[in-house]
Amino acid sequence: MTGRGQFITFEGTEGVGKSTQLANAAATLKALGVDYTVTREPGGTPMAESIRELLLAPRDEPVNDMTELLLMFAARAQHLHTRILPELEAGRWVLCDRFTDATFAYQGGGRGVPAERIALLENLVQGSFRPDQVILLDAPVETGMTRARHRGELDRFEQEAVAFFERIRRTYLERAAADHGRYHIVDAAQPLEAVSRDVTSLINRLVSRS
Amino acid sequence: MTGRGQFITFEGTEGVGKSTQLANAAATLKALGVDYTVTREPGGTPMAESIRELLLAPRDEPVNDMTELLLMFAARAQHLHTRILPELEAGRWVLCDRFTDATFAYQGGGRGVPAERIALLENLVQGSFRPDQVILLDAPVETGMTRARHRGELDRFEQEAVAFFERIRRTYLERAAADHGRYHIVDAAQPLEAVSRDVTSLINRLVSRS
Ligand SMILES: Nc1ncnc2c1ncn2[C@@H]1O[C@H](COP(=O)(O)OP(=O)(O)OP(=O)(O)O)[C@@H](O)[C@H]1O
Ligand SMILES: Nc1ncnc2c1ncn2[C@@H]1O[C@H](COP(=O)(O)OP(=O)(O)OP(=O)(O)O)[C@@H](O)[C@H]1O
Ligand SMILES: [Mg+2]
Ligand SMILES: [Mg+2]
Repeated sequence: MTGRGQFITFEGTEGVGKSTQLANAAATLKALGVDYTVTREPGGTPMAESIRELLLAPRDEPVNDMTELLLMFAARAQHLHTRILPELEAGRWVLCDRFTDATFAYQGGGRGVPAERIALLENLVQGSFRPDQVILLDAPVETGMTRARHRGELDRFEQEAVAFFERIRRTYLERAAADHGRYHIVDAAQPLEAVSRDVTSLINRLVSRS
Repeated sequence: MTGRGQFITFEGTEGVGKSTQLANAAATLKALGVDYTVTREPGGTPMAESIRELLLAPRDEPVNDMTELLLMFAARAQHLHTRILPELEAGRWVLCDRFTDATFAYQGGGRGVPAERIALLENLVQGSFRPDQVILLDAPVETGMTRARHRGELDRFEQEAVAFFERIRRTYLERAAADHGRYHIVDAAQPLEAVSRDVTSLINRLVSRS
């Protein structure tokens, strides 16, 4: 448990249970005595949270795809360099609600920005830094949307059509299929207790091999 | 005067007279009957102006250099695609207070971000689009600072030391020296009437050859 912490990200479409399972993973780490911090993207520092507000706010002005992509990576550069890396170097595990996989899924699969452009920015901002483990909560798009439906006003992404989220889900699954080592697909359509049991046992495994 | 408009940018260190000479150039175009619009960077659309506020606000959190650079280009992508290009295609001239030369000068020369990283983002956001003409108002750093001194609270850039602005001035001059065709260095240390006369005659020349 000394040495560098692990960087674990939680991914998936809207309402699939990312925040719920991140809290569950945090409780598991706590029970195991692992030092950790929880954070989210876009956001995670005061300045990055201000960028998040700019990104999510519904607006009349059409937002250019490249503007959205660059704002995502601007928030990420701030979060990564002023918070995530120092935490990991201090030996803490970092649990992050969305990261660069979400950019490939939303701006790439969703908006249609070519993956090479996203990869170029990923390298520019992150160098060779990647999540140690990606927990992909996968469920039919409608399942998550139904779970999240009780929410208030929709943000700029939540206002998109179902087809947008179908493309996002497909992109996530393709990325997971291409890299079995780091990605863990969890069946998030199961009842909450079953999803939590899967995530708890995964976290236990990651800690025991760390 | 039909066909695409010209994109003219005004560059230089703090307080050197960019906004004053942009207004002078606008008055000259008006007198010549040229259709034009005036704008600025970072900014130029409501969303890009919000990004400007994020960039200029003094803050306790240290701002990562890459964050600052990506925010500049996020604002630029929005401004370029939703305003500048449509205006130029409609045949209007666009007079812009700072553009990508300022990024090379401030984030490159000032902050020390390698020029290749800036060039990579320039190509990503702008493709081959560059200003048709760059009017570089050049004066000793102290001259502009003295002129601007009456202003209120200093923004995040204005709080920098003199050496920062010396590096910026040098970078502007190097860029101008490397590309005589598009850059016009105006001696901005002259009295206002002399600077205005130089800029007016330059604009007259640009219109007559357009
Ligand atoms: N497996 C599950 N079965 C049923 N309901 C669930 C399950 N997992 C989470 N929920 C509920 O679904 C709702 C959305 O969950 P949560 O907020 O964790 O999703 P999310 O992926 O973080 O959503 P968002 O994309 O909006 O951030 C919550 O009310 C949560 O209690
Ligand atoms: N040649 C000049 N001689 C003396 N004063 C000048 C001259 N040009 C401009 N000024 C004055 O200097 C001040 C700064 O000018 P201006 O606002 O145009 O500079 P700027 O380059 O746009 O500044 P900033 O970088 O802060 O935007 C103004 O009060 C302006 O009237
Ligand atoms: Mg959530
Ligand atoms: Mg000005």
